[in-house]
Amino acid sequence: MTDIAMIEAARQRIGDEASRTPFLSSPFLDDIAGRKIFVKAECLQRTGSFKFRGGWSAVSALTPDVRKRGVIAFSSGNHAQGVALAAALHGVPSVIIMPQDAPKIKIDNTRAYGAEVVLFDRAKDDRDAIGAKLAEERGLTLIKPFDEPLVIAGQGTVGLEIAEQGREHGIETADVLVPCGGGGLTSGIALALETKAPHYTVRTCEPEKFDDVARSLASGKIERNEALSGSICDAIITPQPGSITFPIMTGRCGKGMAVTEDEALRAMVLAFLRLKVVIEPGGAVALAAALFRGDEIDADTVIAVASGGNVDPAVMAAALARFAD
Amino acid sequence: MTDIAMIEAARQRIGDEASRTPFLSSPFLDDIAGRKIFVKAECLQRTGSFKFRGGWSAVSALTPDVRKRGVIAFSSGNHAQGVALAAALHGVPSVIIMPQDAPKIKIDNTRAYGAEVVLFDRAKDDRDAIGAKLAEERGLTLIKPFDEPLVIAGQGTVGLEIAEQGREHGIETADVLVPCGGGGLTSGIALALETKAPHYTVRTCEPEKFDDVARSLASGKIERNEALSGSICDAIITPQPGSITFPIMTGRCGKGMAVTEDEALRAMVLAFLRLKVVIEPGGAVALAAALFRGDEIDADTVIAVASGGNVDPAVMAAALARFAD
Repeated sequence: MTDIAMIEAARQRIGDEASRTPFLSSPFLDDIAGRKIFVKAECLQRTGSFKFRGGWSAVSALTPDVRKRGVIAFSSGNHAQGVALAAALHGVPSVIIMPQDAPKIKIDNTRAYGAEVVLFDRAKDDRDAIGAKLAEERGLTLIKPFDEPLVIAGQGTVGLEIAEQGREHGIETADVLVPCGGGGLTSGIALALETKAPHYTVRTCEPEKFDDVARSLASGKIERNEALSGSICDAIITPQPGSITFPIMTGRCGKGMAVTEDEALRAMVLAFLRLKVVIEPGGAVALAAALFRGDEIDADTVIAVASGGNVDPAVMAAALARFAD
Repeated sequence: MTDIAMIEAARQRIGDEASRTPFLSSPFLDDIAGRKIFVKAECLQRTGSFKFRGGWSAVSALTPDVRKRGVIAFSSGNHAQGVALAAALHGVPSVIIMPQDAPKIKIDNTRAYGAEVVLFDRAKDDRDAIGAKLAEERGLTLIKPFDEPLVIAGQGTVGLEIAEQGREHGIETADVLVPCGGGGLTSGIALALETKAPHYTVRTCEPEKFDDVARSLASGKIERNEALSGSICDAIITPQPGSITFPIMTGRCGKGMAVTEDEALRAMVLAFLRLKVVIEPGGAVALAAALFRGDEIDADTVIAVASGGNVDPAVMAAALARFAD
């Protein structure tokens, strides 16, 4: 189980490899929200999302003998790129298993970061069997996307930075809003802040209809989403919270929040206009909650994590056309 | 005349009011350029451009009695917003004189930062007379956009940060590419680096047909542009280098560079895709030179300043449609 010592050890292993991403703010966003908003811009992290931290944490913790055989991950998104680059920078091979209908840009990027991409057919192939066979043959270590203590520890380094940057900005109490899929980032941040900034309250943010974590936190047991796809917030759509992340989040997080897709897109456009950063829809749900769900927030200050920026340019262009006036 | 002591004094006055903007990089950009590129992301500065630094430097240097009467500036762009916010944060009035056909968003933003915006008719009104009358009546101090030692000193704080961040990244020699209009930013950076990183070479970057600074540096005397408008890089279109900035740049800058509008737009799109930041066309000319004019660069490492991010969303959407493939 991940604890603060593991998070601090992850930070030691990460060193300068990950960026200390900035806190950004704008009086225009504060006006909309009626309170002070800081955005922790993990979209500016290497590979365009916080996932590089967890990837580096896991790869760097392997013994040299195990690491040199390589790592494997299942992902069509940000986790794939984070693991691929972390492995490449360690000089070890990575294999990423992706559906063959994944966007070409994501396949190309993952290859460009040095990974061997193995494609499977969602209709015919057994993804897990393909991965297990490759891992067995080559001695690869599987890096899970969130339900893995070393990955949670890596994501928790975002929380260490939030505590420090919050102190630098004189923030004594705040709601810390975090885009939440499986819960790796949220649970890492919650563990870090429990020790380093105990007056901050971590709150999960999800798209409506995919608010499994909010419902699970409310009921006290793991709840599933009815739909497993069909959201523009693809980066944070998971069937249910993880079996490791959920117990960490329980008791450490405030009430979960949910936003509409249009709210996420509007937040993405406002980040473009006012902060000059590119956030993907799933990465914008926390900012959206800060901006448009203020009636569910008591704190005077919100720190919203912008978890990733790997948005399809056509999606951004369409959102700008609709919401930038 | 600005010197390193004035730049360091400006930094003292600025304190934490301006952000220390990050160095960003991407292996994808390095591959295109065939060398290492770091982007100094001043688009993430308050008000969306480096101009806030010069505005703060000038406003903060006034004596309290003079300052409390207020400041005045002529600008329809980034300088307007920089001065307006700097004045507002000092609790003093600002008047910004703008053409009445300036984009509504820029007028609205300048007002939102607390300025009184006075509009004039380009065809009928004498801008300078309007400004002089207001300044006289109210005792306002004029803050020029670039040909002003205190403004140059403020922009020079970008150079102090480049020297420090370059050292943190282990960069011993580099070409430092700077988008150049009147030369305030370039001359400030050149003065700072002359002392703090003498092995770095500052080079101006401009749009083709508006390369007055490059031609002036080459001929040794101030040259004018034939056209005074008609570039998408509106933030850096000036008739000629300043009478204060040009002597500073002469002898301290390498050969000037120029890029096409399409190269600037492609750089803007690549910054969107690979760095997750929003750069305006004029702010992207240095990155464009780093990416597409490598045959004019000898250094192994380039530091490209992204000077601003206040782009019309429709311009970005159109550029994404053309160049994001």
